[in-house]
Amino acid sequence: MSQTAESSIGSLNPLDELNGLRLSQKALPLLEHVKAFIAQTVEPAYAEYLEAGKDHKDRWSFAPGQLEALQKAKDKAKEEGLWNFFLPDADTGEGLSNLDYAYIAVELGKNPLASEAMNCSAPDTGNMEVLERVGTPEQKQQWLEPLLAGEIRSAYAMTEPDVASSDARNIHTSAVRDGDDWVINGEKYYISGAGDPRCKILIAMVQTDPDAAGSGKHSQILIPTDTPGYEVLGPMEVFGHDHAPRGHMHIKFTDVRVPYSNVLLGEGRGFEISQVRLGPGRIHHCMRTIGKAEVALDLMVKRGMSRMAFGQPLAKLGGNLEKISRARIEIEAMRLMVLKAAKAMDVLGNKEARVWVSMVKAMVPEKACQIIDQAMQIHGATGVSQWSPLSGLYTDVRHLRYADGPDEVHHMVVGRHELSQH
Amino acid sequence: MSQTAESSIGSLNPLDELNGLRLSQKALPLLEHVKAFIAQTVEPAYAEYLEAGKDHKDRWSFAPGQLEALQKAKDKAKEEGLWNFFLPDADTGEGLSNLDYAYIAVELGKNPLASEAMNCSAPDTGNMEVLERVGTPEQKQQWLEPLLAGEIRSAYAMTEPDVASSDARNIHTSAVRDGDDWVINGEKYYISGAGDPRCKILIAMVQTDPDAAGSGKHSQILIPTDTPGYEVLGPMEVFGHDHAPRGHMHIKFTDVRVPYSNVLLGEGRGFEISQVRLGPGRIHHCMRTIGKAEVALDLMVKRGMSRMAFGQPLAKLGGNLEKISRARIEIEAMRLMVLKAAKAMDVLGNKEARVWVSMVKAMVPEKACQIIDQAMQIHGATGVSQWSPLSGLYTDVRHLRYADGPDEVHHMVVGRHELSQH
Amino acid sequence: MSQTAESSIGSLNPLDELNGLRLSQKALPLLEHVKAFIAQTVEPAYAEYLEAGKDHKDRWSFAPGQLEALQKAKDKAKEEGLWNFFLPDADTGEGLSNLDYAYIAVELGKNPLASEAMNCSAPDTGNMEVLERVGTPEQKQQWLEPLLAGEIRSAYAMTEPDVASSDARNIHTSAVRDGDDWVINGEKYYISGAGDPRCKILIAMVQTDPDAAGSGKHSQILIPTDTPGYEVLGPMEVFGHDHAPRGHMHIKFTDVRVPYSNVLLGEGRGFEISQVRLGPGRIHHCMRTIGKAEVALDLMVKRGMSRMAFGQPLAKLGGNLEKISRARIEIEAMRLMVLKAAKAMDVLGNKEARVWVSMVKAMVPEKACQIIDQAMQIHGATGVSQWSPLSGLYTDVRHLRYADGPDEVHHMVVGRHELSQH
Amino acid sequence: MSQTAESSIGSLNPLDELNGLRLSQKALPLLEHVKAFIAQTVEPAYAEYLEAGKDHKDRWSFAPGQLEALQKAKDKAKEEGLWNFFLPDADTGEGLSNLDYAYIAVELGKNPLASEAMNCSAPDTGNMEVLERVGTPEQKQQWLEPLLAGEIRSAYAMTEPDVASSDARNIHTSAVRDGDDWVINGEKYYISGAGDPRCKILIAMVQTDPDAAGSGKHSQILIPTDTPGYEVLGPMEVFGHDHAPRGHMHIKFTDVRVPYSNVLLGEGRGFEISQVRLGPGRIHHCMRTIGKAEVALDLMVKRGMSRMAFGQPLAKLGGNLEKISRARIEIEAMRLMVLKAAKAMDVLGNKEARVWVSMVKAMVPEKACQIIDQAMQIHGATGVSQWSPLSGLYTDVRHLRYADGPDEVHHMVVGRHELSQH
Repeated sequence: MSQTAESSIGSLNPLDELNGLRLSQKALPLLEHVKAFIAQTVEPAYAEYLEAGKDHKDRWSFAPGQLEALQKAKDKAKEEGLWNFFLPDADTGEGLSNLDYAYIAVELGKNPLASEAMNCSAPDTGNMEVLERVGTPEQKQQWLEPLLAGEIRSAYAMTEPDVASSDARNIHTSAVRDGDDWVINGEKYYISGAGDPRCKILIAMVQTDPDAAGSGKHSQILIPTDTPGYEVLGPMEVFGHDHAPRGHMHIKFTDVRVPYSNVLLGEGRGFEISQVRLGPGRIHHCMRTIGKAEVALDLMVKRGMSRMAFGQPLAKLGGNLEKISRARIEIEAMRLMVLKAAKAMDVLGNKEARVWVSMVKAMVPEKACQIIDQAMQIHGATGVSQWSPLSGLYTDVRHLRYADGPDEVHHMVVGRHELSQH
Repeated sequence: MSQTAESSIGSLNPLDELNGLRLSQKALPLLEHVKAFIAQTVEPAYAEYLEAGKDHKDRWSFAPGQLEALQKAKDKAKEEGLWNFFLPDADTGEGLSNLDYAYIAVELGKNPLASEAMNCSAPDTGNMEVLERVGTPEQKQQWLEPLLAGEIRSAYAMTEPDVASSDARNIHTSAVRDGDDWVINGEKYYISGAGDPRCKILIAMVQTDPDAAGSGKHSQILIPTDTPGYEVLGPMEVFGHDHAPRGHMHIKFTDVRVPYSNVLLGEGRGFEISQVRLGPGRIHHCMRTIGKAEVALDLMVKRGMSRMAFGQPLAKLGGNLEKISRARIEIEAMRLMVLKAAKAMDVLGNKEARVWVSMVKAMVPEKACQIIDQAMQIHGATGVSQWSPLSGLYTDVRHLRYADGPDEVHHMVVGRHELSQH
Repeated sequence: MSQTAESSIGSLNPLDELNGLRLSQKALPLLEHVKAFIAQTVEPAYAEYLEAGKDHKDRWSFAPGQLEALQKAKDKAKEEGLWNFFLPDADTGEGLSNLDYAYIAVELGKNPLASEAMNCSAPDTGNMEVLERVGTPEQKQQWLEPLLAGEIRSAYAMTEPDVASSDARNIHTSAVRDGDDWVINGEKYYISGAGDPRCKILIAMVQTDPDAAGSGKHSQILIPTDTPGYEVLGPMEVFGHDHAPRGHMHIKFTDVRVPYSNVLLGEGRGFEISQVRLGPGRIHHCMRTIGKAEVALDLMVKRGMSRMAFGQPLAKLGGNLEKISRARIEIEAMRLMVLKAAKAMDVLGNKEARVWVSMVKAMVPEKACQIIDQAMQIHGATGVSQWSPLSGLYTDVRHLRYADGPDEVHHMVVGRHELSQH
Repeated sequence: MSQTAESSIGSLNPLDELNGLRLSQKALPLLEHVKAFIAQTVEPAYAEYLEAGKDHKDRWSFAPGQLEALQKAKDKAKEEGLWNFFLPDADTGEGLSNLDYAYIAVELGKNPLASEAMNCSAPDTGNMEVLERVGTPEQKQQWLEPLLAGEIRSAYAMTEPDVASSDARNIHTSAVRDGDDWVINGEKYYISGAGDPRCKILIAMVQTDPDAAGSGKHSQILIPTDTPGYEVLGPMEVFGHDHAPRGHMHIKFTDVRVPYSNVLLGEGRGFEISQVRLGPGRIHHCMRTIGKAEVALDLMVKRGMSRMAFGQPLAKLGGNLEKISRARIEIEAMRLMVLKAAKAMDVLGNKEARVWVSMVKAMVPEKACQIIDQAMQIHGATGVSQWSPLSGLYTDVRHLRYADGPDEVHHMVVGRHELSQH
């Protein structure tokens, strides 16, 4: 296996399963169902959601009617069986392949409520997957079940303001054992979703043993958000967007005390858990990003065809047509790369496929930003305004260039792997 | 000697022989005075201003104490003679050369209150210059005088939401003569400063004769903001930033009626007035942008030296040092180009220098965006947050890529000029 | 079908055959055989070929022993059945799919003699395919048979020095009917392979009816190279390389007289024939180019690991590791795109797949040039010298950026297609 | 006025006020004289030179008549006082400033014989400057005098094939003292001009003390080309160009024995001498490169205006006009940067100005390559052929990206300097 994994990059294994990038027959009905559900249920629900929120003053709560609109869609999704499909079957272990899920993720990326309506939204998916795989029965009962039921939401706390989190070994929020408890102190920021009043549980990467060797210094611990000493200091912005009410929160732990048994998998095994969640998470981000690049290109062409200057539609002026062509080419190249990385995870496992994942994580957000930026440019002032989804798309994708590992670290992974082949 | 050598890169030594494109002897005291005034007066005033605004709820008004802090600085500036220095002497016509002003503009660009404290902020400067040059005695008395005194503020209304304003002939807000009045109808957006409660007057580009030949269709008309039918529909955002309370406003004119004599220079001469204001305005934008790129590079280096990952400061990891080098090289190249364009305006006049102005307008914002973006990237999440000035700098500069003519139009001007030479 | 073709770009047809990019089971033995044959037979033959040519003075002939070395390899290929496999079976029409051929083409691209040893080298493949599809029995007997037997070689004459051939309608070498003959006058240049003493036949695009409508002005005509009035004026160079003795020749036709029956397919149908050959030809160029980019990256890594400066291997200095990472990512993205374009031709037919072909033709040579250029840079002076294959690879690939349609025209095709989707 | 305005872009109006970084009054007559001399004497001499060489077979000698044509121009230059003007006056130390020379260098760069006709060609200028500054009276008499008289030519031997010469401390050709002699062994390559039959003397960087500390390991030694053991192994190519008969030669030293007194300045002081020659040499390369970029842009515009495709001149198709605009902007930015670096050398001295020199050396060749490449692309096949000067210009400039320090090393210098400022 590992031999295949290594040689799978930079050489042709033409018969290898890696090159079969088609959706599976069995996933087709699901994909079609998801698309229909988004069109028929999510889109109206989203319209209702926006309408309900229109004059709402308190940005950090939901307006009356908003959660109701969402809940209706969730109920319908459950009813139709479009629920938690990201998760492997608990008994058989069977589930959607990463490849099949990749095809679906692009659709989820096109509507802001789609993922949550089907209980497939980050970071809950990653948290549920981790709990499913490494949680104790008690942890599963307390947190996995309400998450699977869509009754609560969760967050994942990794990044810290005081250190370069790109090198995850720098993380230094401390958890010190005190009898049967952990006592946790430190700060985290850009904790997505922690502003949501429904967010009840956090998985936090903390340092449990500063003196341990290698990757053994860190652990992941469950922290209920109602624990004394847990404090949301405020929202972090992304280019002025705060994404209220879910937000990207700045959090402080002051002598936060949780039971020792809240550690996941075991003390010092924090980075092992990262392996479980990071591969799929990054791929899903990339696939949704392709959906966003598609939306941007679509808007670019529509604007380019409908606005006139100097006697021609903008799309035909100067280098605009070439920019449109390059955007299309890049999108198709990114799509194939993400499908291949997803397939690599299916065939080789998350660990062996990590170079593929780094390849797409380094490639996709950077190129997608360029495409969205060009789409903004062809829109003039409207492109950066609240009238267009483009600036929101841009900031979403821009923040991926450092989230889950900055581009630079992923290039380092890919570059070192390449050197190791020679 | 070595001290000079070191500081000669990345800073302005305007009198140094190095700068053949150098500041004039007579402008040196002014530049030094401006720098000292910013350090000693504006910076404390800005701190006071921020403090006063901290818990202010109504984003579209100033908080108690804010205008007072600003006014103190303005009074001091007047007292020290640092007031309206952008403007040529009314009697002698003498004033700062564009080249000298360019050196000062980079300093103004480094503090958000600096320009206004010395009554040199856009768009008032352009409006005052236009009134000074083409206003009637009555127009001067009513609007120029309070502007020169810093008692009111003003806006300039060009861009419209419904047409590609990159081709200014598309502008179609209409002004129809009705007896001794104009009756104005239409919409403008991204009207910077129109949210400021002190904004009392607007200069608007409008279409006065759809059937006129060539550039004669358009005129510029003074519209007091308290005229019935003048309505601010709301703020426009730039990537989520609304720059309240000055804002970039969306404005509607419904049967706005102003005296016929409010037309500037004469009916059908709107584009002639543009020639007066656009050259200097664009150059000043570019010079302030260089100041912003300097700030970004400074932050990039500081962060790169202070954060560690993988055992090294970020600045020495991977390609970061080369990015820093390229940023420095580009900044110096931009600086020389802007100085040369300013000098061209001094020597050749605004009209003949227009290709130089288009060259820098097409070059500077695009490259500065890249530099600021790289500075953000080295900061990780903090780079795009409200904790860093970088995302504000980015959006300021990004919006220049379409304001006052999008990059594409300026490249068209430069390209056509080049063809015309052969 | 055409509906599928249109929607195949920019949307996900996940179950569509288009996304099955694996080599077919039946092509696997052939691929393995080709790789083994190159290693065991072509490489020694090439070494012998180079040795034989070492002190040869007359660049425009083969040295004694060169053709013999090649012939031995050709005989062995025929014996082993590795011969003409690019061509569909004459009786059944069956042959390698474009997808399967794409996998093989990358191997052919790695050794300069590999294609010819197996009688699969351009432009003979295209010429044979055209003759096979549209040739008369007489044309087949006279030209196709010796080509299939590897006894003669051929050329394809399109580009002209006097007009912008990027717009093929500009071609104006004239063929005028005179009784049972065509009389041909004009100049062609960059006619690859026409310097080879074995080149006996040329297919030329000529203008037969300047007054015809649409694409009916042009025809393709067979011109034997021993026809009176056919004159090779000399070799054209590519950055100083002349690729003797095959060369890229400059050719003049002076009252060249060939039988009327030498027209292929029919008068005025020149562009129809282009459709037959251009799709596959462009794909094959791109796939071989990927092989070349692989060679460049391999050399880049080897050099980067073996040379030291400032105490480290070059590969670890500055941004070099990131450049290596980006090269690997681009190569994999290009590979998938070419496979997808090949598959599109298999599934949709050459005409419907043309947008995919333009996408890869616009993408691959440009990016491959950048990769080879970076490989040269890491080699220092040796990189551009005759000691390294890199400058040869660069010029081969650089010339593809205008051959068979310049990048700009392919972007125009892709851009227009995108507009047509909205 | 308008004439000035028009011509102020893309040409040098050195006395114009526009150029604050302007030519000195006293250098103006020299510049005018040089331009006139090139037009009236060098251009006809070059035509004669080319004509004389047309059918010459032995690439590594001059054809009968070639040196005569050149000599006539040289005699005339001497007669007119246009001789050795690069050199400071031996008695007064006065000479052209680097700034003034920069203006002239752009003119020299436009004709391949111009520099030599006025005895101002590399590497002789650098060698003469070194001999003038650090040579003994005997060295001056033997080598400087015939060089100043234009009777012999010389070469400079730095780069070695076996090590990464980008880190000059790697150089390991050895010179071992043996009594009153040095005994030299090693290989050098890309020794420009060493193929010229008139090349009589070489300055070689060699390692004289492998055990010395710091930069003391290396020395520079004079090696006459007729010394036994000095062997030219052959020419090195640049993308297939060999630049015969001057060439870039591969040289071997086998027990080459020269007097101990041939060491320049002193044992272990090789890098001190580099400081003398490298700054000016790099600046001159950059200025000539700007001349070449101007030639490329001129050809790009001419071709773009004269060739039609799809009903329009190429220059107006797609993004070509923007490419032309960007080329013009980059050229002007490069010009100002080079002038500033030259001025920095005048004002600060070579050592203090080294960061400015690294800035332009890292900036200019890379950008100029891009401009020339785009000019080639608009020419189609002709652009890379021997019919156009473009591929020669490209390879000249491409080789500067590693000669005299690769881009990467210069970025390292600039980046480190930037860090040192904070």
